[in-house]
Amino acid sequence: MAKELKELTNREENYSQWYNDLVVKAGLAESSAVRGCMVIKPYGYAIWEKMQRALDQMFKDTGHVNAYFPLFIPKSFFSKEAKHVEGFAKECAVVTHYRLMNDPNGNGVVVDPDAKLEEELIVRPTSETIIWNTYKGWIQSYRDLPILCNQWANVVRWEMRTRLFLRTAEFLWQEGHTAHETREEAIEEAYKMVYVYRDFVEQFMGVPVIVGHKSENERFAGAEDTLSIEALMQDGKALQSGTSHFLGQNFAKAFDVQFANRDGKLDYVWATSWGVSTRLMGALIMAHSDNNGLVLPPKLAPIQVVMIPIYKGEEELRTVVARMEKFAAELKKRGISVKIDDRDNVRSGFKFAEYELKGVPVRLAMGPRDMQNGTIEIVRRDTLAKETVSQEGLTDRIEALLDDIQRNIFEKALKYREEHTTKVDTYEEFKKVLEEKGGFILAHWDGTIETEEAIKAETKATIRCIPLDAPEEDGVCIYSGRPSKRRVLFAKAY
Amino acid sequence: MAKELKELTNREENYSQWYNDLVVKAGLAESSAVRGCMVIKPYGYAIWEKMQRALDQMFKDTGHVNAYFPLFIPKSFFSKEAKHVEGFAKECAVVTHYRLMNDPNGNGVVVDPDAKLEEELIVRPTSETIIWNTYKGWIQSYRDLPILCNQWANVVRWEMRTRLFLRTAEFLWQEGHTAHETREEAIEEAYKMVYVYRDFVEQFMGVPVIVGHKSENERFAGAEDTLSIEALMQDGKALQSGTSHFLGQNFAKAFDVQFANRDGKLDYVWATSWGVSTRLMGALIMAHSDNNGLVLPPKLAPIQVVMIPIYKGEEELRTVVARMEKFAAELKKRGISVKIDDRDNVRSGFKFAEYELKGVPVRLAMGPRDMQNGTIEIVRRDTLAKETVSQEGLTDRIEALLDDIQRNIFEKALKYREEHTTKVDTYEEFKKVLEEKGGFILAHWDGTIETEEAIKAETKATIRCIPLDAPEEDGVCIYSGRPSKRRVLFAKAY
Repeated sequence: MAKELKELTNREENYSQWYNDLVVKAGLAESSAVRGCMVIKPYGYAIWEKMQRALDQMFKDTGHVNAYFPLFIPKSFFSKEAKHVEGFAKECAVVTHYRLMNDPNGNGVVVDPDAKLEEELIVRPTSETIIWNTYKGWIQSYRDLPILCNQWANVVRWEMRTRLFLRTAEFLWQEGHTAHETREEAIEEAYKMVYVYRDFVEQFMGVPVIVGHKSENERFAGAEDTLSIEALMQDGKALQSGTSHFLGQNFAKAFDVQFANRDGKLDYVWATSWGVSTRLMGALIMAHSDNNGLVLPPKLAPIQVVMIPIYKGEEELRTVVARMEKFAAELKKRGISVKIDDRDNVRSGFKFAEYELKGVPVRLAMGPRDMQNGTIEIVRRDTLAKETVSQEGLTDRIEALLDDIQRNIFEKALKYREEHTTKVDTYEEFKKVLEEKGGFILAHWDGTIETEEAIKAETKATIRCIPLDAPEEDGVCIYSGRPSKRRVLFAKAY
Repeated sequence: MAKELKELTNREENYSQWYNDLVVKAGLAESSAVRGCMVIKPYGYAIWEKMQRALDQMFKDTGHVNAYFPLFIPKSFFSKEAKHVEGFAKECAVVTHYRLMNDPNGNGVVVDPDAKLEEELIVRPTSETIIWNTYKGWIQSYRDLPILCNQWANVVRWEMRTRLFLRTAEFLWQEGHTAHETREEAIEEAYKMVYVYRDFVEQFMGVPVIVGHKSENERFAGAEDTLSIEALMQDGKALQSGTSHFLGQNFAKAFDVQFANRDGKLDYVWATSWGVSTRLMGALIMAHSDNNGLVLPPKLAPIQVVMIPIYKGEEELRTVVARMEKFAAELKKRGISVKIDDRDNVRSGFKFAEYELKGVPVRLAMGPRDMQNGTIEIVRRDTLAKETVSQEGLTDRIEALLDDIQRNIFEKALKYREEHTTKVDTYEEFKKVLEEKGGFILAHWDGTIETEEAIKAETKATIRCIPLDAPEEDGVCIYSGRPSKRRVLFAKAY
């Protein structure tokens, strides 16, 4: 591990390689034998589970329930919503057969040509179509509304260029699909959920985000409005971290989902959908980590405190570990997760490096001299600051320290974002900032798809969002010179 | 709902239709547009979530961690373990293409013939192959062992005859896959996990089970030993509810997973796998429910206590509900889930029927007269016994009642099983019991596949298991007359 750690690529030298090294060496995920599909390893999955638990509770607290819809979608469903099929559903895994047979030539198994499906099935890339086809049977009257369902599921999009967590053919996510009586209620839901995402990402992941509307061009296929949260990574690139869509009546019309409203008249149902995925793991890793490894926010760290005994010989090891177990018991009582690493076959320096790599927020070390002096060494992962403190009041101290680390990680990321958000008023300036500094750029835009695409083609920067809190401000589009009412957020993005 | 309830088929008339009605009308699941795939509805999913939580904690308490492996498995992987491919992997969903395109004739989308995969991918029916292919990279030395991974996932087996929860093309499950240094340790793990399943099914689901070995013929494809838990349903048929396999070194050999053992020599790794699925939902429903609907054990009931106000007019409703909210707050403090149904557009009789259908363990009703008298009506779902009691000490009473219901449900099921477990010594008797009484039959068997298959062909009964606690006992096989050392468990099964 110490050796492996040395091999962690330097973040400043090659950010992309640093990221990949980190994901693999910290034991978060790895590529699998299936092109574009990853294996999420136990340590990575433990973080994802913590994310799921927190998000799931937030969904339930806002009135949502979980359900589960089929993995497969009949091919014809995709054609029902015209924009959806245009913008989506092309790069999909297609199931055409339902049986294998022994190869008549004796070479393992082959697909049985007689077992061809009448209609091909698509492995869901997203579930609007199958869910709205189901909702049709659930909704007759306004009394059946709202429906506020979420599902935790795997989805598949046949990506050609994949990166662990950020872009994989199969990924894990949650997708909420809600049905409402009125346009207003559906819009309110779409906003509510993008704010749930913001709160989760900021408060649990420690990553500040900008909430805004996607431009028409970047909207979800089939949506009337897409809200997103946009985070800034340490290489100055943006990462879209969650989206919430107001779908209007598009899917209700495509699947003929009507209800008797309060006036007894038939009307189409209003819809939203919203999702976050294992991509959030990418955001978590890239927003905080450094050349020593992961930096995990305490609220999502599978191990919050690690204790490493310093000793010579078995006798000392036993004594120190016995004392550590007492501290551990007290910490666990407060709901803090603790690991005592009493392995006798690796040096403590090796252990230090390992838990730095794994991003454990607090590391405690104690030896015989500490035992005598009633002291203990504390190192916090976020700053790597080390201090030797009294054992007295240790539990309170650590509880406060975890809070402080959680807060500090967020503030550091916020400071980085503030330093890397630049207002520009000319296209020259825009290109210069993009080239030399990166980060978010606030600039005026004329609101047209043509300008957006021209800027993208020339600079690779895209409109991340039109921030909800963007003040009205008269200006001129940096590209076309046409008038603009507010600045929008540009960046190069993952 | 009252109308729907009336339409619930009588259990004694048509058990199979009763089951299906119940699943649909209680809002647990329904068929989807995709043949053989079900939609798990929110109320059904809420029960499944409670099962998952409890099982997941039991897995973690026994040292296991969660991970996630790819949905797709390269076709060639199935050929690597000879028995595995023989016994499995024929009825599978096969992905052959990765792109759709607009139909040149304008009829929606078609599969892009240019996007054919070089090697077909199989949607996992179980994950031994992809996981052992992955473990190869994780294991070099005995220090890397044991690996104790579990995953919660969806799997697909292309079943021709499907029934909600009991047999569906796609289902949800968990699959544990462990890797060990020694045969003994792997065998111990296989036993440990079948006992975890037994404890879960008995203590949470309230369903008694028999633990035993599967006969060679019924073993998992690729296993050296399969342990299972077998439950008895109210129609006298058995339901296999969970399996735990000792896989020997079969998958390690198929995927060349060797490790340096403590003597520094290379050896193949020992394996287990174990799983339970949404099939458990079928067991839960069929083991306890009656002609009024579901009967849920309190430990898995999404709503443990429902409160229904009895009132005339808004004023009375408000007063009664205000009082109920106080009780509800006290119950919630003890971790009891409560729903107050204050809907004003349906009669209370309708509500009573609805919560009986949904299996809510405890129903409270209170009206103005109860308010005056300081009383409240309690109905327990398992026995439908009704009593009017003092409001004083209500919380304690309900907490105790929930425990009592949990215990009673189990005992009732156990009594049913005991009454429907018959020892027989002749084949005539065997067929008579099977025909007239059903249930489990304990009989001597000569241990041969021929006898097992002959009995199955003639009676449809199969050997469910060779119970672990079967005492040694000299006897003769009911079919062949050959000597036998112990009785095995026969039944017709789902």
